[in-house]
Amino acid sequence: MAAPLCGSSFAQTARRQCLHHLKQHLSIWPWRCQRPTYCASAQSRAGSASDIKHSAELIDVNPVRGTRDFAPEEYRIRRWLFDEFEAVSRLFGFEQFETPMLESEDLFVRKAGEEITQQLYNFEDKGQRRVALRPELTPSLARLILRKGKALPMPVKWFTVGQCWRYERTTRGRRREHFQWNMDVVGVPGVEAEVELLTAIAMLLQRLGLGPADVAIKVSSRKVLQALLAKYQVPEASFGPVCIVVDKLDKLPAAQVREELGQLQVSPEAIDGILRLTELTSLEEVTALLGSDNEALAELSRLFELAEASGISEFLEFDPSIVRGLAYYTGIVFEGQDRGQQFRALFGGGRYDGLLGTFGGEAQPCAGFGFGDCVILELLQDRGLVPAMPRQVDDFVVAMDASLHGAASSVAQRLRAHGRTVDLALESRKMKWVFKQSERVGAKRLVLVAPDEWAQGKVRVKDLAAREEKDVSLDDLTA
Amino acid sequence: MAAPLCGSSFAQTARRQCLHHLKQHLSIWPWRCQRPTYCASAQSRAGSASDIKHSAELIDVNPVRGTRDFAPEEYRIRRWLFDEFEAVSRLFGFEQFETPMLESEDLFVRKAGEEITQQLYNFEDKGQRRVALRPELTPSLARLILRKGKALPMPVKWFTVGQCWRYERTTRGRRREHFQWNMDVVGVPGVEAEVELLTAIAMLLQRLGLGPADVAIKVSSRKVLQALLAKYQVPEASFGPVCIVVDKLDKLPAAQVREELGQLQVSPEAIDGILRLTELTSLEEVTALLGSDNEALAELSRLFELAEASGISEFLEFDPSIVRGLAYYTGIVFEGQDRGQQFRALFGGGRYDGLLGTFGGEAQPCAGFGFGDCVILELLQDRGLVPAMPRQVDDFVVAMDASLHGAASSVAQRLRAHGRTVDLALESRKMKWVFKQSERVGAKRLVLVAPDEWAQGKVRVKDLAAREEKDVSLDDLTA
Repeated sequence: MAAPLCGSSFAQTARRQCLHHLKQHLSIWPWRCQRPTYCASAQSRAGSASDIKHSAELIDVNPVRGTRDFAPEEYRIRRWLFDEFEAVSRLFGFEQFETPMLESEDLFVRKAGEEITQQLYNFEDKGQRRVALRPELTPSLARLILRKGKALPMPVKWFTVGQCWRYERTTRGRRREHFQWNMDVVGVPGVEAEVELLTAIAMLLQRLGLGPADVAIKVSSRKVLQALLAKYQVPEASFGPVCIVVDKLDKLPAAQVREELGQLQVSPEAIDGILRLTELTSLEEVTALLGSDNEALAELSRLFELAEASGISEFLEFDPSIVRGLAYYTGIVFEGQDRGQQFRALFGGGRYDGLLGTFGGEAQPCAGFGFGDCVILELLQDRGLVPAMPRQVDDFVVAMDASLHGAASSVAQRLRAHGRTVDLALESRKMKWVFKQSERVGAKRLVLVAPDEWAQGKVRVKDLAAREEKDVSLDDLTA
Repeated sequence: MAAPLCGSSFAQTARRQCLHHLKQHLSIWPWRCQRPTYCASAQSRAGSASDIKHSAELIDVNPVRGTRDFAPEEYRIRRWLFDEFEAVSRLFGFEQFETPMLESEDLFVRKAGEEITQQLYNFEDKGQRRVALRPELTPSLARLILRKGKALPMPVKWFTVGQCWRYERTTRGRRREHFQWNMDVVGVPGVEAEVELLTAIAMLLQRLGLGPADVAIKVSSRKVLQALLAKYQVPEASFGPVCIVVDKLDKLPAAQVREELGQLQVSPEAIDGILRLTELTSLEEVTALLGSDNEALAELSRLFELAEASGISEFLEFDPSIVRGLAYYTGIVFEGQDRGQQFRALFGGGRYDGLLGTFGGEAQPCAGFGFGDCVILELLQDRGLVPAMPRQVDDFVVAMDASLHGAASSVAQRLRAHGRTVDLALESRKMKWVFKQSERVGAKRLVLVAPDEWAQGKVRVKDLAAREEKDVSLDDLTA
């Protein structure tokens, strides 16, 4: 059975697990959990760490609140997912990079009211520098692009998979870290970049077993909203903050969104216009509202046309309510969600042509996305799409007595030199344990080094699937 | 040319690089640099970040002081090394795990005077919890083992590759992070565990091209020193702190070590005994000093005997001056160094049977090692053993005009579906750029989607190594 990485299979697994195990799972909730039952359980964790202590002196064995341990059974699932992220990125010719998890706080401080900057996991280091555990990967990419300077030929196609952090004070049981897969294209002004990114996402989803019936990729352009705001003479400086508020439409009551937009000096007529816009469902309706002489519409049309050629259009849906919650997006924006809308967004991205400029560098057209590790695993587990990944080795090599351990070690080395994965028993134990352990480690063969056979240059080999046993010479062992 | 990950090839590369590039390399020094020239250069970095700014408003494009960016050319080298760490661990049947980089400070606070705990990268989070960026991986492994509790069958063979941090106030230009490969065996009391770990290290070294002529693995047991201290009636409680001081013998003048030992209430006679012990070079001499009825000597003899059988004895050297600088080691200790002693220790490890007990858990015999990413890369680069790892893709697919981009995208998708890595050009550019770019991305083939050929269901394919060009039907393209 595959171990649950995130919370979704909690209900099923909890019944089969003792309380001790159950508590071990309480800290591996999604970054933000949509399902109230799970959140409630997670919240009840507060103060419960002590009751799994074995004695008064035992340290707190849980990871820091809001973080996850990945024991081997959980690590295998994460690794499988990350391998898919990497495989798809490589098929698209993207190069992997990595920046430090710790960055200067400046890199993330923006004044647009984003949740991400309000929940920064920041602190002062011992040299009185303001630093932060990064909340997202894009600003670090931008920093590295600027650092490389003119020596870096455009376009850049880079990807990374890294951990991101947030510090969220008020509620308990919510996760403070998650991992994100990012792919970014720098130096390409056209929607060909966005289509390439969306095609990579679609390939990832399909490799994981998810098709257009499972996941919708909702696409819009901030330029649509921008054109609307221009129509109502809303000042350009308000654009970023307005986007952040509009992004909350699916989380907050309309009245509150109206109030927040009003605080940004958006007129009641403009607010009506915004709310009407977000309810439209086709490019034709938007054309009717804004006119056809519109950059946003031309780009969106081109995007849908290219998506058709790339074979991904069944995943795509035009949805003008999509604006995304990051201040730096300037054009196409998109996000992925399961069709049943049971889970939170799987990924989000878009064009951010202004970011390098706001960092004081030479402007470059940029597009990219972030794809989290947690919601996708919830969805995959819900659909039974996480494969069983038991522990496995080719051979379990065992000396029948301590005097033969050196011999067993030489046999293990011979097998490894031929590329076989080998668990070597490091203690003399009874045969009952040996058989049990060969099952536990998932061995295909049990290789016994016993006195009589060894004297003849042979070992006893048991094929554990076929349940066949025979004596094999060392040469034949690796043949 | 392989890009330098650490400082060792600095001298060669610096001459070929402009000042801009040179400054980019100044932050990627080893954790602690042994070579004064490099350290001097690194130190001169202080305050220089600002002069690579392109304008007054440019953010500091360098990573946080003491940390490294891994641009793709550096990431490829790191990835190659980490893939070797992982491949060897898997050949030995070890399972991968991961714990958070952020841990409770308590996990690392020990009172034995270790450098590692004095340089903790710790801070208070917004919930007034004392936390730290981990300085090493072993305490987190121990925590996770205790968290798993009795449900975890012994022995455990786990490995991890993770980033470790230190905050070091006084000197400049020294690195504050590095990565470590750790392998640990929990639940095995005999030296079979240590030999298995040493055999894995030897295999790693050999896969990287380093043999016993390049690297020495120096081995001793803390029980040797313990037996000597018992002979001089030094109290048992002093054992840990005495080890920490003795470990400084290769870094501090003997007089200072004498003084520090004196402060630990070790008698002058005992100090003389310790210093004499550390100068011995054979088990026979130690037997002469301590007598043959000695657990340490029995274990060491067994270790060298098993090492012979495993084929790794040429790497090993008995050296009673090896005690290692961590308080928790209890038995066998070892460290690896290049034979020329040009570089710092490559790795270190040993037995720590007491750690789980000091955390309040059930005691378990444990042995493990940490192997850093930096010194090994310095050594490999010094020996010319880092392979060239240029950027590479199978195909570079280009549309001859914008109207064919959709077609080019469909061709790219067809190739990727057959497992080929494909860089798709996202802009229409001149042929001169196309050829240059196909070289930059390291393409094996250039696939041109041009109007006439496409009308016939064909594309133009240029084999860039053979410099042959022909029209190919879509079916033949992936055949």
